[in-house]
Amino acid sequence: MHIDVFVTHVGLREKDARDKLIVVIDVLRASTTICTALSNGAKEVIPVNSIEQAMQLSGDLFADTTIVGGERGGVKVRGFDLGNSPSEYTPGTVQGKSVILTTTNGTEALVKSRTGSQVLVGSFVNASAVTEALANADEDMLIVCAGREQRFSLEDFYCAGMIINGIRETRNARDVTVSDTASVAEITFKNYSDDPVQVLKDAAHGQSLIDLGFEDDLYICGEINRVPVLPVYHEGRITIPAS
Amino acid sequence: MHIDVFVTHVGLREKDARDKLIVVIDVLRASTTICTALSNGAKEVIPVNSIEQAMQLSGDLFADTTIVGGERGGVKVRGFDLGNSPSEYTPGTVQGKSVILTTTNGTEALVKSRTGSQVLVGSFVNASAVTEALANADEDMLIVCAGREQRFSLEDFYCAGMIINGIRETRNARDVTVSDTASVAEITFKNYSDDPVQVLKDAAHGQSLIDLGFEDDLYICGEINRVPVLPVYHEGRITIPAS
Repeated sequence: MHIDVFVTHVGLREKDARDKLIVVIDVLRASTTICTALSNGAKEVIPVNSIEQAMQLSGDLFADTTIVGGERGGVKVRGFDLGNSPSEYTPGTVQGKSVILTTTNGTEALVKSRTGSQVLVGSFVNASAVTEALANADEDMLIVCAGREQRFSLEDFYCAGMIINGIRETRNARDVTVSDTASVAEITFKNYSDDPVQVLKDAAHGQSLIDLGFEDDLYICGEINRVPVLPVYHEGRITIPAS
Repeated sequence: MHIDVFVTHVGLREKDARDKLIVVIDVLRASTTICTALSNGAKEVIPVNSIEQAMQLSGDLFADTTIVGGERGGVKVRGFDLGNSPSEYTPGTVQGKSVILTTTNGTEALVKSRTGSQVLVGSFVNASAVTEALANADEDMLIVCAGREQRFSLEDFYCAGMIINGIRETRNARDVTVSDTASVAEITFKNYSDDPVQVLKDAAHGQSLIDLGFEDDLYICGEINRVPVLPVYHEGRITIPAS
C-alpha cells in the first residue's frame, strides 16, 4: 500500500483519484457535519459544488424529505435550512431526510474525488473508524485534504497524519510506503500538540470560526471518535452502507 | 512580520506575491544551480518558463556571452549548453556569461513571484545568507516552494522550515507570526532528520535524481552554506547586487 496526500483539492485531477482508496478530510466542518448528520439518521448527504445546484436539486426533490445546508465564508447561505455547524444536524432535524450540502471547501474536494474505487469521509470524530476500514487494504490510498480557500490547512493535514499513523501502527508498517506529503503529515501529527482541540484553535480556520461565533464547533469537531461512523461517497450520495 | 509558505507555485497569484519579501526555494536543483553559477562568476541568470523562450532569448543575445541551461524531467534539454546540475556551472563555463535557465519547477515559481518587493533565491547552500538578510525585515514574507511537478516536495518544504526557524531564533520570536503552512514547515525542519543530505535522499525528487545518475548532486545541494551568496531576482534577471 502506498499512501499519498493532497494538501488541498487544487491540482487534483480525475486520474490522480482513479481506482484509489480515497479519504476526503474537511475537519472544519463539512466532514464532521456529514458524520453527524448520518449518525443522527439522515438518509443520505448529497454534496454539490454550488448554491445554484443545491437550490435546483432541492426543488426537484420532495420538499418534506429534503434539507438544504451549507455555508459560504463560514456563514449559512441565505434561504438554506441549515448552515455548516454539526450542532444543527440533530436527529429531530435530519432523521430520514436527504441533506443537500454545499460548503466552501469540502464539497468540492468530494466531487473531485469521485473517481476513486472507494471514497470515505474522514475527520477527527470518526478517525478510528476510517483507520480500521483502511488498515488491511492492499490498494493505494490517497488522502485529500479540503484545505481552506484553496490553501493548506493545519487541521486537515494533522488529521491526515493521524490516520496515516494509525494505519502504519495497525499494519506494523508492513508494506506501507508513503509520499513526501504523507511523511510530513505524519511528522506533523506526531510533533504538534496531542490535543486536537488545541490544533483547531491554533489553525487559521479555527481562529476564523471563533471570530464568527462558532467556538463551540471546535470542541465538537475536535473530539476524537465522537461519531464512529464510516460515510461512503458513491454515485453522488454519501451514506453509511449497511454492514 | 508575518511569514507564509506556498507548498508549490500552483495557486500563487500575482496579488499573493505583491509587495512581499519573497524567497523562492527549489533545492533540487534550480536554486542551488543559480547560487553556484553566480558565485562562479556568471554575470546574471535569466529564468524563463519555456524551452522556446530560452532558445529565442539566446538567439537574441550575443552567443559568446550567453549560456543556455536547463532540464525537463531532470535531463538536459537537447541543444542546450548545460543541464541543471550545479556541478556543470563551473567558473570556466559561466564566468562573465548571462545564463538563460529553464527548469521544470523552479523557473516558473520565480516568474510567478516577480511582483514581490524583493525576490530572493533560497536553498540549503545559502540558507544562512537568506536568513540573515530577512531576519530584521518588517515586511511580510512569503516563501514559495517550487515543489515537483506541481506537487509538494519534502526538500523545499524542509528548507522553508529551516529559514523560518532561523528567522525566529534571530528575532527571538519578536513580532513574528506564521501561517498554518509556515508552522508545519518549521515542525518538519525540527523533527525530520537533521542531515539535509538524508532529507534529499528520502525525498521522492532525490530518489528520482539518484535513478537518473545524479546522486552526487544530492551532496552538492545538501551542503549547508556551501555557497553563501544572496541572489536577487529583479526585472527578469537574477544577480548578486553589489553590497
